[in-house]
Amino acid sequence: MAKADARAKLIEVATSLFVERSYDGVSVREICTAAGTTSNMIHHYFGSKEGLYKEIISQFSADVFMGPIKLLSRTPQTAEEFRSLLEIFLDQTLDALIEHRHVYTLARRERVKSDSMMAYQTAFVAFMEAGKVQGLVREQVDAGMITGLIIGRLISQVEDADWIKEVTGTDIVSDEAYRRRWMSANVDIFLHGLSA
Amino acid sequence: MAKADARAKLIEVATSLFVERSYDGVSVREICTAAGTTSNMIHHYFGSKEGLYKEIISQFSADVFMGPIKLLSRTPQTAEEFRSLLEIFLDQTLDALIEHRHVYTLARRERVKSDSMMAYQTAFVAFMEAGKVQGLVREQVDAGMITGLIIGRLISQVEDADWIKEVTGTDIVSDEAYRRRWMSANVDIFLHGLSA
Repeated sequence: MAKADARAKLIEVATSLFVERSYDGVSVREICTAAGTTSNMIHHYFGSKEGLYKEIISQFSADVFMGPIKLLSRTPQTAEEFRSLLEIFLDQTLDALIEHRHVYTLARRERVKSDSMMAYQTAFVAFMEAGKVQGLVREQVDAGMITGLIIGRLISQVEDADWIKEVTGTDIVSDEAYRRRWMSANVDIFLHGLSA
Repeated sequence: MAKADARAKLIEVATSLFVERSYDGVSVREICTAAGTTSNMIHHYFGSKEGLYKEIISQFSADVFMGPIKLLSRTPQTAEEFRSLLEIFLDQTLDALIEHRHVYTLARRERVKSDSMMAYQTAFVAFMEAGKVQGLVREQVDAGMITGLIIGRLISQVEDADWIKEVTGTDIVSDEAYRRRWMSANVDIFLHGLSA
């Protein structure tokens, strides 16, 4: 096995094992056996099991959070632009959460907060504050509260996807058309609320 | 021990054990030993371990969901009345979820859906539909979507309470004044959205 392959293989195998059980439930020896490497390969590439774990979470966080963040550096000038940016930003976040949902479950179970997650949250709050300056977001809306509400909504939909499918028949994971309809209906509520 | 006490004691002890571990992780014998009863008491009162478990969930569901439901039988005539009813209804739900949060965690982990939960959901959706008829709720808002969003928001706040406290310092469980402020800010967003 080439060196770069061994590194990638260790990450792939360890991710599955950690997700299946937990960080504490998996030993270095098991990971190496499953990856077909020797245990000093983990030492070599990641320093330790903890280093390997941190690399997994950091890769996942970058994949999920860094793409959407870039969108928010634009300052929307009109309500239409604001809505459109918000919807694209949330579509990308949802797509990434769904693609990486197994690692997400792991990160959540272990209560990990990565730098990318923090940067994401900060950028999203700043986007809302910029919206206030432009007169597009109501002054009395707490930026931390609304961003928490929105992100929580996306996350719980992904976490409970299997159960929601069972109960309602709708499947946000595999049905892309439903996913877009779901997002559009939710963005409409985030923006305008339920009141007539 | 009087008979009624034995029944209550079995429910109390089994609840703690199920929450601590899981339904499958606890035996009839353990429950009886911890409750100081013989194992045919479980048979006598509940038929089986499953019967005892169902009784716990059903009591919890009634405690959490049946009180708030009654409020929704009123038909609000004005926007103020609608907001006020919604806020009282959600305050009661949140208080009950917080009071019974350990059993809630159990019900969620085991993916239980009780009759009271279903009745709650149905009543909440009907309240939104009645709001549409009165011209208080926007026609294009999907009643299932908005009620799901609102309930999900309450639930995740209770589930993640310990973590939120650690990260932000705010504590929805023990700080009643914060709990009311949190609800008021959220109801404002549910009703009016973020748009200026």
